Amino acid sequence: MILVNGIAADSVAASDRGLNYGDGVFRTITMRRGKVLHWPLHLTKLRADCLRLDIACPSDNALAPDIAAVARATPDCVVKIIVTRGAGLRGYALPAHASPTRIVIASPLAANSQVVSGVHLHLCALRLSHQPALAGIKHLNRLENVLARAEWGDASVAEGLLCDQDGNAIGGTMSNLFIVERGTMATPDLTRCGVAGVTRQRVMQIAQRNGLRCAIENIPLQRVYDADELFLVNSVIGLWPVARLVHQSWVPGAVTADVKRWLEEDDAAAA
Amino acid sequence: MILVNGIAADSVAASDRGLNYGDGVFRTITMRRGKVLHWPLHLTKLRADCLRLDIACPSDNALAPDIAAVARATPDCVVKIIVTRGAGLRGYALPAHASPTRIVIASPLAANSQVVSGVHLHLCALRLSHQPALAGIKHLNRLENVLARAEWGDASVAEGLLCDQDGNAIGGTMSNLFIVERGTMATPDLTRCGVAGVTRQRVMQIAQRNGLRCAIENIPLQRVYDADELFLVNSVIGLWPVARLVHQSWVPGAVTADVKRWLEEDDAAAA
Repeated sequence: MILVNGIAADSVAASDRGLNYGDGVFRTITMRRGKVLHWPLHLTKLRADCLRLDIACPSDNALAPDIAAVARATPDCVVKIIVTRGAGLRGYALPAHASPTRIVIASPLAANSQVVSGVHLHLCALRLSHQPALAGIKHLNRLENVLARAEWGDASVAEGLLCDQDGNAIGGTMSNLFIVERGTMATPDLTRCGVAGVTRQRVMQIAQRNGLRCAIENIPLQRVYDADELFLVNSVIGLWPVARLVHQSWVPGAVTADVKRWLEEDDAAAA
Repeated sequence: MILVNGIAADSVAASDRGLNYGDGVFRTITMRRGKVLHWPLHLTKLRADCLRLDIACPSDNALAPDIAAVARATPDCVVKIIVTRGAGLRGYALPAHASPTRIVIASPLAANSQVVSGVHLHLCALRLSHQPALAGIKHLNRLENVLARAEWGDASVAEGLLCDQDGNAIGGTMSNLFIVERGTMATPDLTRCGVAGVTRQRVMQIAQRNGLRCAIENIPLQRVYDADELFLVNSVIGLWPVARLVHQSWVPGAVTADVKRWLEEDDAAAA
């Protein structure tokens, strides 16, 4: 099912700035039994990302009926919400009266969302560029992610680890990274590149509630190799322990297991 | 007029990777009396950009009928050609059998394409990020250009000058930059950011034919202020002399006038 501005449709205007410039943002969220998990957090993030780009975010009143329609059609699915600046004439200048386009796409839930033993990571050769004006936003300019994901074809490799130009680990191509060192956590600083996801935020909040320290800082790649445990998160996969990166191996550890359990309890409370 | 894969249409699949990820490239070209100016150069650039992203570029046999249809409907116009990787399932991984989407959009010719006295430039606060994997390509990830263009609203300012993170001038938001110093030219090195346009390439070739030296190198912003002349080029505006950047003024100079005349002679020969 696809809804464009609330109407069942499978296409978007060719003049839409989302297509022409990637001028928009998106969310990818799990729906279970007709309920979007952690919707308030996703709506807050959608609004914040729109604000960064000066796009008028559709109201909850506009989005709620779209989500209700998806819930009726496919109660268990992945919901992708795209908000673009809307159609425009040729040229980068913002339209005087932009009317944002909202697109809601339902897709099947991924089969591999419950990984217990840990995933294998490719180390991406592509280095993420530094752009503070866009860092953290889940915007539609995702060619770096596309090129990074195209680096491996081996189906046994679930994700790729991306570093920035300075050699700091930033995250997966579609997920955020946490490392565990002597019982405390750290996650990369995303003020220069990367996407600051909702599940990353949830992990930090849950850790705080449970007295587990989590630092946000630059994490040089060597620190990742040296970490006791590492894991990846996003709103669709949940939490993936990492079992292998290049020649380094890990067994899923106690802190990772704690965080995974806390996330699942939080999901159950939200469902 | 809009053609999508050769068929008159005004929309593109919501699942198109051009919309979802900016996974595609484009060209913006002047058509006069039904003829696309410098088509062989544009087709070569379109192919080169597609190759960089591993997108199968539509053949000239596919594009020629599209362009002929536009020529019949609007013989004097701006033709925008977008090529995306095509529709795909959710996720960054390249589709196993991608079928590229080609979109041809005709727009009115800009009224201000003949500037003689020189344009005023805004100095953009946004700094372009360094991404060698994407530098030079006219791809659909153009949020930096959108944000830069949104920095000014004054209609008397025609373009914005963009620098990179190191403070080197890179070009306009929609144009390439040349500076003139003691009778020789220089244009920014675009191996880390920026778009290497066809008219930039034409200027360099024409300069060489006429014995005018043109260096490709890093150009710190101060060198732009200190230059004897500067001008901007693209395939729609042709050549714009620069009359003002912040508090610095220039009168259109002799080298700029030479290059402008050579470009116009070359256009006339191509038309």
